[in-house]
Amino acid sequence: MPENNMDKPKIVTCTAPVNIAVVKYWGKRNEELILPINSSLSVTLHQDQLKTTTTVATSRSFQEDRIWLNGKEEDITHPRLQSCLREIRRLARKRRNDGDPSVDSTGLSHKVHICSVNNFPTAAGLASSAAGFACLVYTLARVFGVEGELSGIARQGSGSACRSMYGGFVQWIMGDKDDGKDSLAQQVEPQTHWPELRILVLVASAERKPVGSTSGMQTSVQTSCLLKHRAQSVVPERMVEMIDAVRRKDFPAFAELTMKDSNQFHATCLDTYPPIFYLSSVSHQVISLVHRYNKHYGETRVAYTFDAGPNAVIFTLEQHVSEIVQVVQHFFPPDTNGEDFIKGLPVSRAPLSEELKRGIGLEPMAKGINYIISTKAGPGPCVVEDPTQHLLSSDGLPKKTV
Amino acid sequence: MPENNMDKPKIVTCTAPVNIAVVKYWGKRNEELILPINSSLSVTLHQDQLKTTTTVATSRSFQEDRIWLNGKEEDITHPRLQSCLREIRRLARKRRNDGDPSVDSTGLSHKVHICSVNNFPTAAGLASSAAGFACLVYTLARVFGVEGELSGIARQGSGSACRSMYGGFVQWIMGDKDDGKDSLAQQVEPQTHWPELRILVLVASAERKPVGSTSGMQTSVQTSCLLKHRAQSVVPERMVEMIDAVRRKDFPAFAELTMKDSNQFHATCLDTYPPIFYLSSVSHQVISLVHRYNKHYGETRVAYTFDAGPNAVIFTLEQHVSEIVQVVQHFFPPDTNGEDFIKGLPVSRAPLSEELKRGIGLEPMAKGINYIISTKAGPGPCVVEDPTQHLLSSDGLPKKTV
Repeated sequence: MPENNMDKPKIVTCTAPVNIAVVKYWGKRNEELILPINSSLSVTLHQDQLKTTTTVATSRSFQEDRIWLNGKEEDITHPRLQSCLREIRRLARKRRNDGDPSVDSTGLSHKVHICSVNNFPTAAGLASSAAGFACLVYTLARVFGVEGELSGIARQGSGSACRSMYGGFVQWIMGDKDDGKDSLAQQVEPQTHWPELRILVLVASAERKPVGSTSGMQTSVQTSCLLKHRAQSVVPERMVEMIDAVRRKDFPAFAELTMKDSNQFHATCLDTYPPIFYLSSVSHQVISLVHRYNKHYGETRVAYTFDAGPNAVIFTLEQHVSEIVQVVQHFFPPDTNGEDFIKGLPVSRAPLSEELKRGIGLEPMAKGINYIISTKAGPGPCVVEDPTQHLLSSDGLPKKTV
Repeated sequence: MPENNMDKPKIVTCTAPVNIAVVKYWGKRNEELILPINSSLSVTLHQDQLKTTTTVATSRSFQEDRIWLNGKEEDITHPRLQSCLREIRRLARKRRNDGDPSVDSTGLSHKVHICSVNNFPTAAGLASSAAGFACLVYTLARVFGVEGELSGIARQGSGSACRSMYGGFVQWIMGDKDDGKDSLAQQVEPQTHWPELRILVLVASAERKPVGSTSGMQTSVQTSCLLKHRAQSVVPERMVEMIDAVRRKDFPAFAELTMKDSNQFHATCLDTYPPIFYLSSVSHQVISLVHRYNKHYGETRVAYTFDAGPNAVIFTLEQHVSEIVQVVQHFFPPDTNGEDFIKGLPVSRAPLSEELKRGIGLEPMAKGINYIISTKAGPGPCVVEDPTQHLLSSDGLPKKTV
């Protein structure tokens, strides 16, 4: 029954990571192609803690392209989704026409069903679009048998998604071509390069919904003269310095550039008209805490960075994680007794010295931080081989458990 | 008894105003001479609401220079005080040597007693050093019979004090000479130029003492690349536009430039390393309130500006003052029943429309603002002719009532 077999959907499931920029992307020179006004650099977070899982099914029997996100069917006609679907199909067709035997020629005309979930709550305010589009593009490419450079397609889903196509330390080279063909992500170092580097995501209790990054960066490009200067004259040199700091595993250099770049990004938001605020009083307290902690020890042991949302991401080295977690918990006393305050990689507990508390000398701020996710640098997108992990059943619809 | 008469002190009392910059001064190119990295422009506030009063007495019988500030004797050896005293005496000596008959030649060798008070609480966090040094220099000049350009001396007490030497709309031209001789204040328009312009000082309840402006601007000059760009490439053009907006009495242009410049100043503070925060959650709420109010009416009716402290200064036109005060009071409900919430120029009360409240749509923030001072543009330093107003008695010591 070959007919019957062809009706059975082809199903592929992959996972992709979240990334956190240490040289920030803010501002597009081309809205449609998502071409940035400056290069950026990020650390890919480990998927054991934060990941998107996406299943794509194709079948001759599917009537139309469909998508389910976190259990809810969404509009497949969203322009950025369409860009990714179109570009992957175009690439598959091109490769087939070039005689690539890996391209699944019959599947090319089939409709797709897509199902995607995050292993972290959307309410955590973690930018899920980067992991989401990276996972979509990576999974679609597997389904259609397309290999090689895919970050240029992921970029057209969400700019920073291109950086989630690789593990470890990743730069997004802005490129200068009008068609965006040279605006691609590139791995600077793999995740094995700097095993001592540790990352703490401080999930903040958001007071109100901040300005979305798409419209925020549009307004910044239109109105902030400081952003223009940053993109043209500050970032190029900073990229060189950051890549160098990563390669040399120079934590103080990496940390200081990370903090300066986060601050400068938020400075350009403030220079936007009307101004955009992503830093709250909780963020200010985290910033003070980090600078006072470093000052207390007379060296840069910890760094912060903030994206277009309320969470702080903290970088440090393994040997300091335990103390820093205690410090955060002391100055942001949680609602609970601290049992659930720390998730992810295990963190050992040690009492906090009175001297350090005095040295920092801030007023504790209750309930500012909901919990901490302890993680590290991790790999790029992966294929999930176990078919029980598929999010779509053989009928092409989401499994009940999703 | 000519001897006796000569022992009787010569006493002069003057007043000087506070000013609020709409193109901000932040950063020195010469710390000792107080030469700025960019020009700035301010509005002189009316002395009916905010002023410093200074009495200077000289007498052959005084043993040493002394100073009392707000009722407390302070250290006269403060370098900036010494700069002003030295420069005024040098100028007086020069004029005497040039044959100017108005210079009091005998008094030149006498010691001075200085007594100064503000008519507003220091706790209000209003930058009193500008008014203070302007008043000191103006009063000393009167005592020694020096006339003419004095802003260059006031500048050496406190940079922004040079702008308090004139009423109305005042620019501080940065100059380019190494000796600072061309770094002077100049009146752009007198206070009579724009009588409809009204100013509301929203006195905020400060949570903690912010970084002082002297050390803050030093760190900014050393570490912020955005500040350098602002000073070199943004402010020169903005000064031209601002002077033009003032001359044309174009409120929307004046208001937008004022808000943009305040935001850019705070952006450079954030780009400083470690970053400096002067804007609090109360400031953020004021900024949102102003933008939403303007958006509601589809025109720029009100503007904010923030200095290196927690207070907001609001500009508007006379016809909108009443409504704006009601709006502020609604979104910052005061502790009291509102009786003492508004000080200064009388403001009529009108009920606030539900439509406007809904249009603004912010959560009210209790106790963020202590009170409002309602004022307008005012004149420069004045001599107080009434001898009962002297702060020093004929024995050269502060009157008991001070």
